[in-house]
Amino acid sequence: MTTTVTTLKGQPLDKAALESLLRRRMFYTPSFEIYGGVSGLYDYGPPGCALQANVIDIWRKHFILEEDMLEVDCTALTPHDVLKTSGHVDKFADWMCKDPKNGEILRADHFVEDVLEARLKGDKEARGQKVEEKEEDPKKKKKKSKGHEAVKLDDAVVKEYEEVLAQIDNYNGEQLGELIKKYDLRNPSTGEQPSPPVAFNLMFQTSIGPSSNTPGYLRPETAQGQFLNFAKLLEFNTGQMPFASASIGKSYRNEISPRAGLLRVREFLMAEIEHFVDPESHKKHHRFHEVEDIELDFLDRQTQLSGKTTTTRTTIGEAVKSGMVDNETLGYFLARIHLFLKKIGIDQTKIRFRQHMANEMAHYACDCWDAELLTSSGWVECVGCADRSAYDLTVHAKKTGAPLIVRQRLDEPKVIEEWEVEIEKKKFGPFFKKDGKTIEAAILATTQEERGKLAKELEETGKATINVPSIGDGKVEVSKDLLAIKWQKRVENIREYTPNVIEPSFGIGRILYALMEHNYWTRASEGGDEARGVLSFPPAVAPTKVLIVPLSSHKDFTPTVRKLSQKLRSAGISSRVDDSSASIGKRYSRNDELGTPFGITVDFQTVKDGTVTLRERDSTRQVRADEGKIIDAIKALVEGTKTWQDIESELPIFEGQQEVEVTVR
Amino acid sequence: MTTTVTTLKGQPLDKAALESLLRRRMFYTPSFEIYGGVSGLYDYGPPGCALQANVIDIWRKHFILEEDMLEVDCTALTPHDVLKTSGHVDKFADWMCKDPKNGEILRADHFVEDVLEARLKGDKEARGQKVEEKEEDPKKKKKKSKGHEAVKLDDAVVKEYEEVLAQIDNYNGEQLGELIKKYDLRNPSTGEQPSPPVAFNLMFQTSIGPSSNTPGYLRPETAQGQFLNFAKLLEFNTGQMPFASASIGKSYRNEISPRAGLLRVREFLMAEIEHFVDPESHKKHHRFHEVEDIELDFLDRQTQLSGKTTTTRTTIGEAVKSGMVDNETLGYFLARIHLFLKKIGIDQTKIRFRQHMANEMAHYACDCWDAELLTSSGWVECVGCADRSAYDLTVHAKKTGAPLIVRQRLDEPKVIEEWEVEIEKKKFGPFFKKDGKTIEAAILATTQEERGKLAKELEETGKATINVPSIGDGKVEVSKDLLAIKWQKRVENIREYTPNVIEPSFGIGRILYALMEHNYWTRASEGGDEARGVLSFPPAVAPTKVLIVPLSSHKDFTPTVRKLSQKLRSAGISSRVDDSSASIGKRYSRNDELGTPFGITVDFQTVKDGTVTLRERDSTRQVRADEGKIIDAIKALVEGTKTWQDIESELPIFEGQQEVEVTVR
Repeated sequence: MTTTVTTLKGQPLDKAALESLLRRRMFYTPSFEIYGGVSGLYDYGPPGCALQANVIDIWRKHFILEEDMLEVDCTALTPHDVLKTSGHVDKFADWMCKDPKNGEILRADHFVEDVLEARLKGDKEARGQKVEEKEEDPKKKKKKSKGHEAVKLDDAVVKEYEEVLAQIDNYNGEQLGELIKKYDLRNPSTGEQPSPPVAFNLMFQTSIGPSSNTPGYLRPETAQGQFLNFAKLLEFNTGQMPFASASIGKSYRNEISPRAGLLRVREFLMAEIEHFVDPESHKKHHRFHEVEDIELDFLDRQTQLSGKTTTTRTTIGEAVKSGMVDNETLGYFLARIHLFLKKIGIDQTKIRFRQHMANEMAHYACDCWDAELLTSSGWVECVGCADRSAYDLTVHAKKTGAPLIVRQRLDEPKVIEEWEVEIEKKKFGPFFKKDGKTIEAAILATTQEERGKLAKELEETGKATINVPSIGDGKVEVSKDLLAIKWQKRVENIREYTPNVIEPSFGIGRILYALMEHNYWTRASEGGDEARGVLSFPPAVAPTKVLIVPLSSHKDFTPTVRKLSQKLRSAGISSRVDDSSASIGKRYSRNDELGTPFGITVDFQTVKDGTVTLRERDSTRQVRADEGKIIDAIKALVEGTKTWQDIESELPIFEGQQEVEVTVR
Repeated sequence: MTTTVTTLKGQPLDKAALESLLRRRMFYTPSFEIYGGVSGLYDYGPPGCALQANVIDIWRKHFILEEDMLEVDCTALTPHDVLKTSGHVDKFADWMCKDPKNGEILRADHFVEDVLEARLKGDKEARGQKVEEKEEDPKKKKKKSKGHEAVKLDDAVVKEYEEVLAQIDNYNGEQLGELIKKYDLRNPSTGEQPSPPVAFNLMFQTSIGPSSNTPGYLRPETAQGQFLNFAKLLEFNTGQMPFASASIGKSYRNEISPRAGLLRVREFLMAEIEHFVDPESHKKHHRFHEVEDIELDFLDRQTQLSGKTTTTRTTIGEAVKSGMVDNETLGYFLARIHLFLKKIGIDQTKIRFRQHMANEMAHYACDCWDAELLTSSGWVECVGCADRSAYDLTVHAKKTGAPLIVRQRLDEPKVIEEWEVEIEKKKFGPFFKKDGKTIEAAILATTQEERGKLAKELEETGKATINVPSIGDGKVEVSKDLLAIKWQKRVENIREYTPNVIEPSFGIGRILYALMEHNYWTRASEGGDEARGVLSFPPAVAPTKVLIVPLSSHKDFTPTVRKLSQKLRSAGISSRVDDSSASIGKRYSRNDELGTPFGITVDFQTVKDGTVTLRERDSTRQVRADEGKIIDAIKALVEGTKTWQDIESELPIFEGQQEVEVTVR
């Protein structure tokens, strides 16, 4: 699983340098850092915030507006009963074990993974093979992966360990406990074998109201609010199926020991879609033909169970046809997820779709594919796409009695023939007195098969023998003047059903982190002294679109700069001015780090003739034209209607200024 | 305080009809309703969500982009220590009392207010005066305000009650307890006097991490995250002052008994600005001149303390000049808040700015003005604008040792002359041994005045007598070979200071509710049978901009409708299609309820010549032109560059179709 990651320019990724850049430029920062911080909690600074807002904006357009989804905004505070019914109170847990010596709390699957990987590394070293060091991994504890010794293992043992690791997500607590015993796995920091894994519920608990009588949790997903509103949403959609709701909001998971930066956090932004579909439609999707030729990399369940991690590249049309992906709706969303990731600038060579194994799936899911993105921490689940079947709507309807169903008017009425019970109420009650209701309930609870037999008995003997365990010897005879059972025909015009749910669920923070890694590279500075970081975000997601750089802080430039910045704002383009005393090259390179795609230089020529230069971040090439043309060019570039090549062919190239050498005080 | 509210057409507001509309059309809905609901928690449905997103978008442009504020996104989960330091653990509480008979929990100030108002109503009835019934009030419990009897009060008592009510927000728990005793206030549902008020902390508590050793809360405001990041934000802003940070996110308050719909909820969206300013600048604002002529309605502290609620209308320039509003920065933001509320469509006659009274202010504030909006529940605080002085930065810096300060290079170095202490360390320590450190600390803690005296004593007697309470008789003599105190001159080039903070803080949910009330009115239907609701949102905030109505569900219309909806999407205009079988009039009137400002009808003429009709919601007037011109018109209307009058003068009026009478199947 260890992976070497390269930047989009093919350089080995220097993760430490990237993370230093991201924190220095305040893309994100540990929350409450001056109080020592709390692991798993991060704040976004101005560029991180803008990047997040832009990604969310594209998400909203790509999914909600494009497909007329019904957006809802539900509360994170959730009363206990809702999450009890949904299964989260009982099942939303990770396996946790404790070091008996120092009390350290370990997440069981990560612990097993760490120790086995350390042993495999030790084996490689002993065999004199090159060991790739992984810097940090969301599923791993850093300290431990260094605790390996160069010990050679039997070939068979190596194979066994590799097979365990390939399906590490598939073990339950008991099985993890067995692995710990079987392989005598010990905590490197104490040399002790940890206690057997116990379930630790991942929800944050609180109490709603002053009298502590409404226990509640912070939602672990935004889905439940959407399910509870199903009947209202269906009505809002004038009863039409299929439809999707969507929600963008924070969710909370009390991770056991989060140590992987933005990849495993306790409070995170989710964007979730619940697509409600008629199960009898075979989950067909009317726009599937639009995406069927898109090729994706798949890692299916079978491959993983056989201990391998090789992906298969095929079209989504083929994947659904072959049955690897269960149905069109699931397939449609996998392709749409892919298109979304492409649009925001995720590296196309670093996406794969991995199917969950049976034990790995959430308690509500009957199938699930993750869009995983390759980062320096390995493959990271960033989008889940689960088929939740009718699970949630069914359990909530059962618990509350609310009709979370669709009533469909049938095109052709359906004729049903079956045994129906008729009780002669006026005589039945007085005859059986206090036992009447119990006996009636027992009759109504009979199956069609039983009714057939009872009808025959009635016809033949004039009475029917009903099983009523709570009365006398458990048999009650009912005569035909009290009860009739007839073969009846009836016509139904309405079909009632509980929809199935396909749920694409996006972890926005993880996507943002992958986006930053995928767009990071370094450029040798012209002086050659040190490599400078560049974040090559697509213009649409870049935090700021334009940097305005006056040649100096000379007063002559002030009105021009102010006017320019006002014009850009009117055109809906975010800009920032840097009129500091640093050199132009330095100012541009600071903004390359922020991913600002375009730069405008205002110089003495500008004051004379109104022309400015426009610089493109990735090529550092420049054109020069009057302000109006440059603003139009930027607008076209940000909206994606033109490329930089187009602009270079339309406007005069400018080569007058050397970025680094011009230093103005 | 009882208020009759009229709609923007001067009709008496039928609140029940409005609320029924808002729930029916899913602007908002009680959360977890199928589980019986949880008071104070609401979900937004699709139109509410879109309205909220549009208001937030305008907020971001009006404040963050317009003034280059630094947006941050911090976590809601907050460790105990942070909120202990900020004062929220000890002071963020409401007064709560309990009915001794039935255990009912009452919010003390609301209880006092309810009972006194009920008595005043009873008095009015006894005097034969008209009593205006208030339907619901965020500060009141509905049940109780009905519990009044027609009992006449002395004139002096009436005056006393009115004075108490005018400053109800100014009483602390003890004072509320005294009022309850003094006026013998009793819970109408039991006839009992409730227990003395006790403080109830309004924060939701939880525990972070698996071992329960990090107690935490859900943030009650977004401000703290901004304060904790101050040093990083200042660096991001390259050290320049003043600057503002801003944050949009959920906050949580465990209200004692919320019963006022969207006006008092336990989870709510806030948009908060922290504007950091040098206190020695007299809180001047460089853009104050842009707003100084704007007139606002003020209700200052003095007026309220005199038992009155009459407002004064004056310019913000005048209000700052007269000292009623303390400083320019505070004044600038009051005016900017006003402009924002105007932009989103708040009724200009229903805004006032009310100053907090001393006991009413939050523990961190030294001055505070609320923008209050008039609703059927009376005047409701929707935006607070507090001067938090240096409170928060100071307490966090003191607690953590983090330098939450600004280091300002002085234009002219500052010469400081003062008494400085010099301790002869090599001799001092060995001489005093274990007491050395304590004595040294006592010397260093002396004031300039004390040092002057000690210097004189040293000069005259060769020793100084230091007060050290923990040693011997509390006096320690230090000889001049161990200690010198000299009058020294030094030059400082850097000034260090803790900025003050002006905080405009917006409760988005309350603003949305007021916005819905202010824009609601009813129109008699053409048949005259019943009044139909209209929500006259400005186009920029309306949830959907355009309704597309094909004359019928005839197949000929499908491609035209699809193309039109695609073109609108490309132009960035949200639209919805209603191709149901309802009459055109009915379909339009359903969308008047949703506040959709424009409607396009696609008919047989469209299929022939590409023209469509465009209907304006408020006037129901229509124009007809080809599709391209209509889309341009809508774009101009939504962006606010043209009015409907402009469009009517440019495009041919269309009067061919009667909305209600054309019914097509």
